[in-house]
Amino acid sequence: MTETNRQVQLAARPNGFPKNSDFQIAGAPVPEAGDGEMLVRNIYMSVDPYMRGRMNDFSGSYIPPFPIGGPMGGGAVGQVIQSKHGDFSEGDIVLNQNGWQEYFIRPGDKLNDGADPIKIDPSLAPLSAFLGVLGMPGLTAYAGLTEIGVPKSGETFYVSAAAGAVGAIAGQMAKIKGCRVVGSAGSDEKVAYLTDEIGFDAAFNYKTQDLNKALADACPNGIDVNFENVGGDMLQAVLHQMNSGGRIIYCGSISGYNATTPLPGPNNLMMMIMREVAMRGYIVTSHMHLMPAFYQDIGGWLKSGQMTYRETVVDGIENAPSAFMGMLKGENMGKMIVKVGPDPTQQT
Amino acid sequence: MTETNRQVQLAARPNGFPKNSDFQIAGAPVPEAGDGEMLVRNIYMSVDPYMRGRMNDFSGSYIPPFPIGGPMGGGAVGQVIQSKHGDFSEGDIVLNQNGWQEYFIRPGDKLNDGADPIKIDPSLAPLSAFLGVLGMPGLTAYAGLTEIGVPKSGETFYVSAAAGAVGAIAGQMAKIKGCRVVGSAGSDEKVAYLTDEIGFDAAFNYKTQDLNKALADACPNGIDVNFENVGGDMLQAVLHQMNSGGRIIYCGSISGYNATTPLPGPNNLMMMIMREVAMRGYIVTSHMHLMPAFYQDIGGWLKSGQMTYRETVVDGIENAPSAFMGMLKGENMGKMIVKVGPDPTQQT
Repeated sequence: MTETNRQVQLAARPNGFPKNSDFQIAGAPVPEAGDGEMLVRNIYMSVDPYMRGRMNDFSGSYIPPFPIGGPMGGGAVGQVIQSKHGDFSEGDIVLNQNGWQEYFIRPGDKLNDGADPIKIDPSLAPLSAFLGVLGMPGLTAYAGLTEIGVPKSGETFYVSAAAGAVGAIAGQMAKIKGCRVVGSAGSDEKVAYLTDEIGFDAAFNYKTQDLNKALADACPNGIDVNFENVGGDMLQAVLHQMNSGGRIIYCGSISGYNATTPLPGPNNLMMMIMREVAMRGYIVTSHMHLMPAFYQDIGGWLKSGQMTYRETVVDGIENAPSAFMGMLKGENMGKMIVKVGPDPTQQT
Repeated sequence: MTETNRQVQLAARPNGFPKNSDFQIAGAPVPEAGDGEMLVRNIYMSVDPYMRGRMNDFSGSYIPPFPIGGPMGGGAVGQVIQSKHGDFSEGDIVLNQNGWQEYFIRPGDKLNDGADPIKIDPSLAPLSAFLGVLGMPGLTAYAGLTEIGVPKSGETFYVSAAAGAVGAIAGQMAKIKGCRVVGSAGSDEKVAYLTDEIGFDAAFNYKTQDLNKALADACPNGIDVNFENVGGDMLQAVLHQMNSGGRIIYCGSISGYNATTPLPGPNNLMMMIMREVAMRGYIVTSHMHLMPAFYQDIGGWLKSGQMTYRETVVDGIENAPSAFMGMLKGENMGKMIVKVGPDPTQQT
């Protein structure tokens, strides 16, 4: 083959918010699959907040840092274009963990390194959905509401970053469970999306309103379950509003991801004692056993129209760094996706 | 009667650490019991960290503030000296919530205001124990280990303020459950007590050692369960050492009780996500259903010698404010108790 395989690599560890020069695009000839291997062409790749943590050199995390001069990585959907393994055929669509590159080689045998490609059924949903509502972000929301801080009918459920890939699914799922659902987001357009399109009972723009007042006004009966994506000042405001016996599903803390020095935590953690609040952090990969129920429930809600989703699709792997940085700034509505190459299931 | 009933009142709301002038001692004639009432003479009273919160004018707490110019209050053990209620007889020993005064009148009928006197059996234990190991502090430890963050055999259990009324019981109970038990305290004498007298596997003086290093050295396998009494920098150090799937029993946050402005929280709360940690605040009064099991278990461990306790007893109600302030500074070993009057069960 004479085609070029482009790969986005980590050029330097960001100091604070990432910049273009922290990334580099390397090109190499597209490789050939050896015995027992397959060659995959990526179609869509995911950019997610957790990737920011992997750009740091921090050994205490649950996943290793990206190597400097090596590929970034993460969820992607691709198509097998050459297979020398009996379990995979040319044309198969595979969910994989080899994003940020146009082509890659993997053994067809299970390496059990958490990155084994999985065949998916392209008739179930648009391919990009397997990176969002039917993928890791969807499962993150589903696991949070199923195993971490189970909201009950009639309770007030508050989610920050509510128009994001995880937040919008968490909020809709809480609504299906019978909660009064409140969300916050960083633009009036997103707020309108929450209340007018996906059925939130209340929502506010945290950038233009006083956070404590807006949250208190939107949650007149307090908060029973908080789906926490932001941390910092947001979590501090939430703690003031938590009801006795409340639960905090601690999913993310995006407010601190680009800090050059650690940001102080909420100054009112004592509220957790006074209000008898339980707060639990979790990682989606510890909840993979939920996958069958997840596909059944979310798939059913999508089919019935009880749940909908949005995506922001950026075209071209060369734009992956700016898509990633835009996602960290909240420029996306719903899941931020990068289209790496042609989608064989799409009409052109 | 011509005797004087002395009462310690809140004279002013403290700004920061309490001072003598925040308290005043008022005297009045000892009252007479009316129909259906009883007159109780207090023998021992408790000073506890939570009382500092009740000195503030803060409506968000689970218990109302003490009124200015009114009595402080809290756990005490007294003797009925006059009864005009059929359920109580002169000579009965009663656990009550009318501390900080020498005498008080209560109806014998249940008011269900959380402060009904309860008859106790003085043959079971020394009377002061009903304010410590067999009282609210003991139940606080017991509830934390039974219903909040259940430690399992072989796990590392770390408790801060470990030589205090709650910490020493929590640590010994974790040891009985088969944990490796580590504690910290604020003097070398307390550290020696933990390791030499009550069987802690390791302990350190947080005032003279680097907190992060001492904690890491004392917990080479990380922390599985943390019994958190301190908050602030202590909790931040703990979060760095928490193991995946760890639990934090969030009992108190004494480091912040005397702050004039709210102190920043731990800057590494994100570790709760990365290590999948669950942290749960609680209030002992929500766990009163444990009382029978608590008496049986702790009573049994005291009898078998598997558990021991210490008390620091200060004599005279006029010294209650200094005993309270000394407790906030950590001057006590084990439970801080004020002896208000003669103990009829004690040989003199």
